[in-house]
Amino acid sequence: MNLLLLEEADFIAADRVILRDRRLTHMQEVHRCEVGDSMRVGRIGGLMGAAEVLRLDAAEAELRVTLDQQPPSKLPLTLVLALPRPKMLRRVFQTVAAMGVPRVVLVNSYRVEKSFWQTPFLEPEAIREQLILGLEQARDSVLPEIVIEKRFKPFVEDRLPAITEGTLGLVGHPGNYPPCPRGLDEPVTLAIGPEGGWIPYEIDLLGKSGLQPVQLGERILRVETAVTALLARLF
Amino acid sequence: MNLLLLEEADFIAADRVILRDRRLTHMQEVHRCEVGDSMRVGRIGGLMGAAEVLRLDAAEAELRVTLDQQPPSKLPLTLVLALPRPKMLRRVFQTVAAMGVPRVVLVNSYRVEKSFWQTPFLEPEAIREQLILGLEQARDSVLPEIVIEKRFKPFVEDRLPAITEGTLGLVGHPGNYPPCPRGLDEPVTLAIGPEGGWIPYEIDLLGKSGLQPVQLGERILRVETAVTALLARLF
Repeated sequence: MNLLLLEEADFIAADRVILRDRRLTHMQEVHRCEVGDSMRVGRIGGLMGAAEVLRLDAAEAELRVTLDQQPPSKLPLTLVLALPRPKMLRRVFQTVAAMGVPRVVLVNSYRVEKSFWQTPFLEPEAIREQLILGLEQARDSVLPEIVIEKRFKPFVEDRLPAITEGTLGLVGHPGNYPPCPRGLDEPVTLAIGPEGGWIPYEIDLLGKSGLQPVQLGERILRVETAVTALLARLF
Repeated sequence: MNLLLLEEADFIAADRVILRDRRLTHMQEVHRCEVGDSMRVGRIGGLMGAAEVLRLDAAEAELRVTLDQQPPSKLPLTLVLALPRPKMLRRVFQTVAAMGVPRVVLVNSYRVEKSFWQTPFLEPEAIREQLILGLEQARDSVLPEIVIEKRFKPFVEDRLPAITEGTLGLVGHPGNYPPCPRGLDEPVTLAIGPEGGWIPYEIDLLGKSGLQPVQLGERILRVETAVTALLARLF
């Protein structure tokens, strides 16, 4: 935790918060905070800054916060991601939040197992928990938007064109395609497939909605690694 | 598992192997192999190719293998990595093997907790197990070399200069440094610090041995994510 994130409910005044949960534990056990110490904080959805520990005991901590810094900028990106398996999904949420992806669309795909859609990790609170871990790691205070699209064709045909408009549309796909471009400044819509990849029908349909295939070499990477590698290369 | 890796001990003839362990289970439960099916295989440290299932029962599988393909090329890189915490270490081994890093030097650093050096995940067999998972994922048959250097100063002063000679020496470090370069063709020696980063003394000493600091933006990434992001950007 490189940033302590503050919820609306933590505020007891414009510049005061009370913390009682895992953040209190973390302050005590990892940071070994004492009264008078200063910590980096951010208000979820708002500014970042510093907090001074006013009071600290086993039950709660009271902090005085000064929020005067903009969070880091997000990438100019919408990430369209075939739903990963549940264990991977949780790490992907952390990774996209840490890397500064502002919007992720989770879509179905032929090679996504149907059971993956039943995972409790797709509940809004579970998603938010992982995103917050990513923001705490990277020092960011703004949650990415996560959109769930259980049906591939209606999403790609009806809603994806409005997302890709005005952006460079790319789909990561192994094969004889151009290499993924590097160091872009322009907005991008990037689609990443499931384990086993998109099927040809899906590549066709994504292409009609403005996403052209690019490849990242012959090595097959896990979804989380592929997401990180593609983003690090694109921006 | 996108590639079935074969050990020397599996071979009963130049073109025949018998499998009994988790690879047999994987063939049956994930790939649902039957006699006559073909699978991608690689000989550890050797060529890759295809195998035909000759015989398959609950106890063992016999395959006829044809090894005629070179494994994918490795990155022109030595990665010097401050020892990560054990849980992260296992994933880092998988990641570096999957991304094609040929050599990793695990070093001590001021911010590496002493207890991390006691982990059973540093036993040669445990390292090899994780590396093989990464190779199976990425379809590569050549194990990276893992070097363990428990003392920072003797390594950096006495052995690092010979490693960096003739390479571009870089150390990932947040701060007012040049951005990490992109799309290199030349050989690189890259050092990545522990959680919390290198201390100034370490940056100085690494600099004297030829590694100059570069930064990857203001977001603080987990070690595994930072490794992937730096490699994807460099090459």
